[in-house]
Amino acid sequence: MESDTIDTFFNPKSVAIIGATTNPDKAGHVIFKNFANNKKRGIFKGKIFPVNPKMDLLFEFKCYSRITEIQEQLDLIVIVVPARVVPQIMEDASIKQVKTAIIISAGFREIGEIELEKHVVSIAKKAGIRILGPNCLGVYYSKTGVDTLFLPETKVLTTGDEIIATPRPMFGDIAIVTQSGAFGIAALDYLAGRQIGISKFVSFGNKSDVTETEVIDYLLSDKETKAILLYVEDIKHGRRFLKIAKTVALKKPIVALKSGRSIAGARAAASHTGAIAGSDKVYDTVFKQTGVFRANDMEEFFDAGKALSMQPPALGKNIGLLTDAGGPGIMAVDECESKGLFVNHFSEETINKFQKLKNRGILPKFAATSNPVDLTGSVTDEMYEIAADLIFQDPKIHGIILLGLHHLPALKEKYIDGIAEISKKYTKPIVMSDIGETEMALYTRFRFDKLGIPAYPSPEDAARAMSALVQYGQFLIKNRQEKEYLKKFFEKKI
Amino acid sequence: MESDTIDTFFNPKSVAIIGATTNPDKAGHVIFKNFANNKKRGIFKGKIFPVNPKMDLLFEFKCYSRITEIQEQLDLIVIVVPARVVPQIMEDASIKQVKTAIIISAGFREIGEIELEKHVVSIAKKAGIRILGPNCLGVYYSKTGVDTLFLPETKVLTTGDEIIATPRPMFGDIAIVTQSGAFGIAALDYLAGRQIGISKFVSFGNKSDVTETEVIDYLLSDKETKAILLYVEDIKHGRRFLKIAKTVALKKPIVALKSGRSIAGARAAASHTGAIAGSDKVYDTVFKQTGVFRANDMEEFFDAGKALSMQPPALGKNIGLLTDAGGPGIMAVDECESKGLFVNHFSEETINKFQKLKNRGILPKFAATSNPVDLTGSVTDEMYEIAADLIFQDPKIHGIILLGLHHLPALKEKYIDGIAEISKKYTKPIVMSDIGETEMALYTRFRFDKLGIPAYPSPEDAARAMSALVQYGQFLIKNRQEKEYLKKFFEKKI
Repeated sequence: MESDTIDTFFNPKSVAIIGATTNPDKAGHVIFKNFANNKKRGIFKGKIFPVNPKMDLLFEFKCYSRITEIQEQLDLIVIVVPARVVPQIMEDASIKQVKTAIIISAGFREIGEIELEKHVVSIAKKAGIRILGPNCLGVYYSKTGVDTLFLPETKVLTTGDEIIATPRPMFGDIAIVTQSGAFGIAALDYLAGRQIGISKFVSFGNKSDVTETEVIDYLLSDKETKAILLYVEDIKHGRRFLKIAKTVALKKPIVALKSGRSIAGARAAASHTGAIAGSDKVYDTVFKQTGVFRANDMEEFFDAGKALSMQPPALGKNIGLLTDAGGPGIMAVDECESKGLFVNHFSEETINKFQKLKNRGILPKFAATSNPVDLTGSVTDEMYEIAADLIFQDPKIHGIILLGLHHLPALKEKYIDGIAEISKKYTKPIVMSDIGETEMALYTRFRFDKLGIPAYPSPEDAARAMSALVQYGQFLIKNRQEKEYLKKFFEKKI
Repeated sequence: MESDTIDTFFNPKSVAIIGATTNPDKAGHVIFKNFANNKKRGIFKGKIFPVNPKMDLLFEFKCYSRITEIQEQLDLIVIVVPARVVPQIMEDASIKQVKTAIIISAGFREIGEIELEKHVVSIAKKAGIRILGPNCLGVYYSKTGVDTLFLPETKVLTTGDEIIATPRPMFGDIAIVTQSGAFGIAALDYLAGRQIGISKFVSFGNKSDVTETEVIDYLLSDKETKAILLYVEDIKHGRRFLKIAKTVALKKPIVALKSGRSIAGARAAASHTGAIAGSDKVYDTVFKQTGVFRANDMEEFFDAGKALSMQPPALGKNIGLLTDAGGPGIMAVDECESKGLFVNHFSEETINKFQKLKNRGILPKFAATSNPVDLTGSVTDEMYEIAADLIFQDPKIHGIILLGLHHLPALKEKYIDGIAEISKKYTKPIVMSDIGETEMALYTRFRFDKLGIPAYPSPEDAARAMSALVQYGQFLIKNRQEKEYLKKFFEKKI
């Protein structure tokens, strides 16, 4: 199986870093240090071999002048030397029967050196070596300590202060697969700050050999990955992608950010990685056919990924909206409709139940209860829990958007756990929003996230996240996979 | 002049709070405490009169049973008593010849009590009293200490912890005018967290008397306000709004978030404040004619307000893009094009200058320099400064989007001040983005903001902000006011 080889990128038993050096400004230094530190901490359990003809020792590791001098079998080599030297390295790798190579070095197809890239690939192909890159960041996998990101976690400013610059996110459910290294790094910074964990990170750059398709195929059977975030500027081997992506998407949600939508954007993409993007409408069709959710922008990309990794899909388009604030409720309704979702009236039974609760003084007399439910400024924690439960029960409702604006005086934090408990009784998805960028807003969103209910800073973000859950549900239904998916989702098998 | 009366809401020499009480759960308590605290701290310089027939003394202030018992002239009364009592209060206010009244109380038009609301207004009209509300939060103006927000800054959780819940933002350039109180409060929380200052805050709720139009008319001559953020669910007296909004917008940018765009949204709006929203297309036309920038969602609302309050408008649609990361650059280009902006090639002179810099090794040999300029992973602080200056100089370029992804190793923080200095030489706008949610990303964006260059967390956000600057520029040009506006903008007279 091919996926065994791809697995070697994440689980190598031995790694040589070619271009490892003591100069802290060099990528080869940072990458070697990553491995050496992870080895010291007991995270990386394989063997490490620095390769640099000018040195004998590096961080107490014996340094080799060529990989052919290394006695042990090499699972992975990481190449961080100038492009022109890479063919020679690859010849050595052929002799050593290396399994996989990550070529960090730039200076290939992306600057017009197409022949050089082809030459490197042809050597590797003959020897059966799989290549990630060139012109990429490679792999980050926190569990085995493989970290070929050449950007150190901290940076020293001109003031002398050391500051977190490129954090590695915690372990979690989302895989990041990216053509752009810079965007990949930015994504790690975003996810680390938002405390969203990742399973695996792959930056494949020029994708001279291993493509996005192979990586997502590998991730299909990766038990640690619940959702895949894919950033691409073009897609290679479209027909294969169509087949594989659909197979994967039926089991595991994929969110794509495909840039170069516009004419000027496509031009910029071409000069970036030499990508020939083709018509953007073709990509729209490809994503639709394969069930890949296409995000409109960076924020939707992360928001949809978070929703799909945390919540089951919505098996219909009718959304129940529960709010304590009229204005933001309307904003969410607007965005739902613009995304093709419905915020229709509840079933008669639900309306009657709400009326009774109002009559008995359990909900505010003037609360709107015909969807959206607006609990008004008199909202309490208990009201939220009662109302959410009722909405979940309505057979006409396929998902809930909860707007829990924390500002109102009688609302405390108790309802957060309450809602999380209630949601466990149902297989319908729920997302939430609280607006604000200070203490209680951040706390509220963080708590919901931790309890598996994705929380967003604006009502429209929450609506867009729900739209991703609906779209994925529609895809599964169309392919009659919704029951199978839900079963696995709730058995925690995705 | 009417605006003199409106000014009384912000600068009252004497205030009575009707419904002031010792019960900390009551709105009347919070509002009275706001005034009493601001008086103690020397911020509120007027006189304060608590009104509550059940008490003699409140926080060492003599308590009155009716306002007619107060000897002094009353500029402002704040009404926080049940709706049915309000007509009687208003009769007393007539006798006292009160100038202005903020009716916080709900229970009027928004729940169908239209006659009650009309009755209150008719009493006030006869006596020449201007009303803000009912069903509103009223006014927050940090300079004079008028704070009728009944939501305390902190909240005590069930755990016993006290936590910031409804912060008041610092003083700044943006006025918030909002129909929805809950959204208004949420906006304050957002702006406080993002460290964006506000000049004045007005929540007008049911707008039984004072409307959005009068408030923005007042803000036209308010020297502290550089840009107006207006949240509405409907607009009263459309013809007047058309006239006034355009007059204001020619001098001062207005950003509107009009919710109830969708059919379900309009239905929700109707049940929220009793607003009859009318066709949404009409609003599109109204905003276009008046030069009001209509935001698509909450985030764009704040982002556009920030850009327009900090930067001059763009006097054309051609945008120069400067980046150190290919992928995010393409994302910004895509969003520019989708908003009708152009990222065209530079003038020949600029292209030649860039070529020379590359030849001399001052910029990376493989940097793309035909717009976007991609300084690549080799970027340094100096390169950013040199490239930005060149792009500013290009006569074909009307504004700059700078993507300063901080992750790259040789980029420090020095360029932030450098870019700010360079931008001062030109009258073209500049906005920036850095992606990430940890230390250095937050620091970078914060520094740019402080230096007057609006910074955003995603490339698309930056592009949308630039689009607001372009759209406002187009409106000024169409009305031949661009020179006048720029003159005043740079004389700091807006």
